[in-house]
Amino acid sequence: MSSFKSNFKLGDYLTLVRQENPLVHAITNHVTINDCANITLAAGASPAMCESKEEVSDFVPFAKALYINIGTINKEHKKSIYLAAEKASRLEIPIVVDPVGAVAIKSRQDLVKDLLTNYSVSCIKGNNAEIKCLAGRRTHGKGMDSLDTGKDIQMVNSELSEKYNTMVLSTGKTDLITKGSTTVKVSNGTPLLGRITGSGCMLGILISAFIGVSDNDLEAVIAGIVSMGIVGELAEESISSTTDLGSFRVKIFDYMAALTSEKLQERGNVSVL
Amino acid sequence: MSSFKSNFKLGDYLTLVRQENPLVHAITNHVTINDCANITLAAGASPAMCESKEEVSDFVPFAKALYINIGTINKEHKKSIYLAAEKASRLEIPIVVDPVGAVAIKSRQDLVKDLLTNYSVSCIKGNNAEIKCLAGRRTHGKGMDSLDTGKDIQMVNSELSEKYNTMVLSTGKTDLITKGSTTVKVSNGTPLLGRITGSGCMLGILISAFIGVSDNDLEAVIAGIVSMGIVGELAEESISSTTDLGSFRVKIFDYMAALTSEKLQERGNVSVL
Amino acid sequence: MSSFKSNFKLGDYLTLVRQENPLVHAITNHVTINDCANITLAAGASPAMCESKEEVSDFVPFAKALYINIGTINKEHKKSIYLAAEKASRLEIPIVVDPVGAVAIKSRQDLVKDLLTNYSVSCIKGNNAEIKCLAGRRTHGKGMDSLDTGKDIQMVNSELSEKYNTMVLSTGKTDLITKGSTTVKVSNGTPLLGRITGSGCMLGILISAFIGVSDNDLEAVIAGIVSMGIVGELAEESISSTTDLGSFRVKIFDYMAALTSEKLQERGNVSVL
Repeated sequence: MSSFKSNFKLGDYLTLVRQENPLVHAITNHVTINDCANITLAAGASPAMCESKEEVSDFVPFAKALYINIGTINKEHKKSIYLAAEKASRLEIPIVVDPVGAVAIKSRQDLVKDLLTNYSVSCIKGNNAEIKCLAGRRTHGKGMDSLDTGKDIQMVNSELSEKYNTMVLSTGKTDLITKGSTTVKVSNGTPLLGRITGSGCMLGILISAFIGVSDNDLEAVIAGIVSMGIVGELAEESISSTTDLGSFRVKIFDYMAALTSEKLQERGNVSVL
Repeated sequence: MSSFKSNFKLGDYLTLVRQENPLVHAITNHVTINDCANITLAAGASPAMCESKEEVSDFVPFAKALYINIGTINKEHKKSIYLAAEKASRLEIPIVVDPVGAVAIKSRQDLVKDLLTNYSVSCIKGNNAEIKCLAGRRTHGKGMDSLDTGKDIQMVNSELSEKYNTMVLSTGKTDLITKGSTTVKVSNGTPLLGRITGSGCMLGILISAFIGVSDNDLEAVIAGIVSMGIVGELAEESISSTTDLGSFRVKIFDYMAALTSEKLQERGNVSVL
Repeated sequence: MSSFKSNFKLGDYLTLVRQENPLVHAITNHVTINDCANITLAAGASPAMCESKEEVSDFVPFAKALYINIGTINKEHKKSIYLAAEKASRLEIPIVVDPVGAVAIKSRQDLVKDLLTNYSVSCIKGNNAEIKCLAGRRTHGKGMDSLDTGKDIQMVNSELSEKYNTMVLSTGKTDLITKGSTTVKVSNGTPLLGRITGSGCMLGILISAFIGVSDNDLEAVIAGIVSMGIVGELAEESISSTTDLGSFRVKIFDYMAALTSEKLQERGNVSVL
């Protein structure tokens, strides 16, 4: 059980997702686009991957949240992202930004900072290396992945949260979520999630779905993180060896669809720092 | 057993697909493109996803059918779709059109109507909401999904079939396929298919493969629908809980590859309206 | 056991991949892009799918190998491929080229020949039909697949290897890898690998990872081929029917992550021709 005072409500957010079935508009990378759609469905929400610059402005208004993941971004997608972010900001539809690859590729940092500066981004979510690099700190990544141990990450989260007036979620061995002066630590999950592609992206679209059904975006994001973490734990417990990565991946969808509010309460490992 | 008079032939179409291994050229969305390829292979046909405007005209002639799915369409894909449809029409290669997202996005409706008007489309396949919206009726969708109960859908199917001189397949709780004055109802499948992404797209490419090996396109499409439906039923029966969505998805490919003509006859639930 | 004199080292290459965790930069098709990422992770390497022309030149220097697969190429990707190949050649980062669809589409042949002529390609890997067509021989393919029995393929491999001063891997019932005057035959694998999409692409990115950690590129490529083949054999042995294609696919990732150097030695079926 956690010491987070509002922990007793975590399960309610999952119930809300299931009841309201929020439509999440995703402009996301093509490596894990199918995983993102399926995890959203398994959680009880509705994914819609609409990414052409001719369409996004018309599509955003239908959505309860906009998930932007720049993992395989190109020039066209960049235009779509700006158009979608503009429209979502105007309509006060929450935006979650996932700065995949920002450590290695300078232009992606610029894009993300630009989005944070000019649009109303509810949450920026990255691994420790991505978050640090956006804050102008030295860090170490490998391709799209983080090799950063997360030292000082709490301070970096706070800095970034204040600078851009947004929630910051940094993922690593533990996940820290910061909004203003509050930082919450989530200790669910398993390193196995890092051995398959798409676990970070699935987390990103999940928290978008959770934000989409709630006015308390901090608690909603925590409920999303805890959900993904518990599902990873349950999937790991169900396989016969930690090398069963293919089976592990299948089980993630099984356990997400089977997740209950009670399980969320029972296994959630959340504490306020 | 069904009352459809030609039901006894349904299994033959599967046998034909396995014998002739038709090449299906797909220009399809990137969310479920892998599922589409794998279901086609499992059914015994050959998928080829070729989508650049520089290549499609040269590639179409190799195919036995062209499957067009606009789920993640962009400006370039639109050009490719026109070029491919033009070439396929000229060569009398059957075309199946899947109007994903047409309910929410006006320009997709226009594109689909344009294809139906100007090219020789063998079958237009959509959920109830998509089919109704193409017929200019009021309907209700959510993102890419249908919230339409299918009231009046038989009449709408007939209207659309007559207007564009094409087969119309509307999917929902039951599936209706209309060609001219004939409407056939297929009652196979399971609601679980709606809880994973790609089941509609897989159905679309499957019926393309079936149309590709037959001169009787109505019966061929029915055989394709029944195949997908039965595979869904078998996959559902094989999992231990209806929340096992990941496992369900894996089993779909297992059962599609294992499907026999006998099973198709035995479990097909088809009736002429 | 094999008669290949250096067979005793095959397992060492897998150990190296696991130790060095090489970053493989892939510009690859969108049908199997997720499979490619997951097999790379399961093998112990790091995939990075970066494909926009604005980014590839900056990204290549981080990589230990560049994998180019033209399965769903378009005009933009073509530009990216040239830029990436140019940069990789200059930095002596090994390049593996996978000429998917070259049999059916003339412009793809031209692209691949151009890459082989102007850049330093370490290995060209294709099915028998693709390799023969690049050598200007008559062959027979179906869409992206080969219908070529592989007659004369050893001679063709040698010709192509000499002409472009590169390694040539032709895949089929058995796989032949030729470098200069040496040709090695690998007899691992199972026809089931041909019944799912992505097995060829996964092999392509795998050998890129193996090349990325070694100076002996011939042995490294052989170790990669043997790895994929054994994993296919083990996955087949683990399923209850050869029609269990969905389960087979899941098991490939399980067995790749569980593969050991010892298993590689024990089951590798390699001989010098």
